[in-house]
Amino acid sequence: MKRSVVILSGGLDSSTLLYDWVKSGQREVYALSVDYGQRHVRELAYARKLAEGLGVPHRVADLKALKPLFGENALTGAATEVPKTDYATANMTVTVVPNRNMILLAVAGAWAAGLHAEDIGYAAHAGDHTIYPDCRPAFAEAMDKALLLCDWNALHLARPYVHLSKADIVRRGAELGVPYEKTWSCYEGGEVHCGLCATCRERKAAFLTAGVPDPTTYLS
Amino acid sequence: MKRSVVILSGGLDSSTLLYDWVKSGQREVYALSVDYGQRHVRELAYARKLAEGLGVPHRVADLKALKPLFGENALTGAATEVPKTDYATANMTVTVVPNRNMILLAVAGAWAAGLHAEDIGYAAHAGDHTIYPDCRPAFAEAMDKALLLCDWNALHLARPYVHLSKADIVRRGAELGVPYEKTWSCYEGGEVHCGLCATCRERKAAFLTAGVPDPTTYLS
Repeated sequence: MKRSVVILSGGLDSSTLLYDWVKSGQREVYALSVDYGQRHVRELAYARKLAEGLGVPHRVADLKALKPLFGENALTGAATEVPKTDYATANMTVTVVPNRNMILLAVAGAWAAGLHAEDIGYAAHAGDHTIYPDCRPAFAEAMDKALLLCDWNALHLARPYVHLSKADIVRRGAELGVPYEKTWSCYEGGEVHCGLCATCRERKAAFLTAGVPDPTTYLS
Repeated sequence: MKRSVVILSGGLDSSTLLYDWVKSGQREVYALSVDYGQRHVRELAYARKLAEGLGVPHRVADLKALKPLFGENALTGAATEVPKTDYATANMTVTVVPNRNMILLAVAGAWAAGLHAEDIGYAAHAGDHTIYPDCRPAFAEAMDKALLLCDWNALHLARPYVHLSKADIVRRGAELGVPYEKTWSCYEGGEVHCGLCATCRERKAAFLTAGVPDPTTYLS
């Protein structure tokens, strides 16, 4: 049985990957979420419940203290609003948190190395946006090589969805029975999904394109 | 003027690098230390004073909350003692903190990216021990490639001491006027350097080999 750590944000992609790997019966799965001071900290409660529902050990790494290092941005800053636009708009660059993904992967690597896990599951996908430098496939490939050397045991960065679109992922999740009403995407992090920020727009579009009923309650 | 972030533990190597780069007059230097729950947290106070003495902006990233993820080891665990031996002894592997260096570099990368710095100064050197997988040159080279891709601005991992021994570094530091009495190495983290742990043994040997008077007070 392969031991694996899944990076679980509580959103569509990583929640589907969690279900995928747990339901495969081929892996002993551990789930890691990271509190980096995100405005939508609500996603962590969703992550916790999903992991609980599957009986998967779950940890939340508390990195809130890093907020000052991230400077001002719409996800961890107090002064910058989340744009109510799609990703094609230039101002979405305010949602970039500097080097966030390297930090997530490094922390997952620490837990994975201690657990002697074989790989880290990372739900990078074909729809990841080019405004995020650390969402580039070349970045993930470089991190794969670094993770392979960070411990004596080989540790791989698995990205099984790297060629899937968000709609493909939702289709896969529907087959797996992922309870999407128990996942969270919205960057605003309010009581319900705002329906207007770029992640909400993409969430709606993914269900629509996949032909899967969207169980999400949107404000707009 | 090049902008650079130096990873500063407060020990011999990184303190020398800090002085080296500040005294060069070629760089605008920022210093980053990390509280990862190390037993020898005392090193951070030394780092702070060194940076203050040079007028260098200094941040301590608080990652104490990661301790549970690191599992049991002699540096962050409560139950494991720091061996009173040199590095040649097998039991020094208890001082390995899983993936620690990737985490340090990732956090430094976040700050550096936000500051639009050109490089991160990392005092890896020729005497780094092979018991630490994340001290291997191949690991640092992989991280250099990943850091180059983590942001839109090219960010390099500079390791100017990679071919120097600890004695070479002390010789360099003596020329630069590094106040070594204001640096800290001992893993025990007591009132004074224990003189018996592997880092203390190496500290003593470095001054002796370099022919530089050792200003350190050792218990033994």
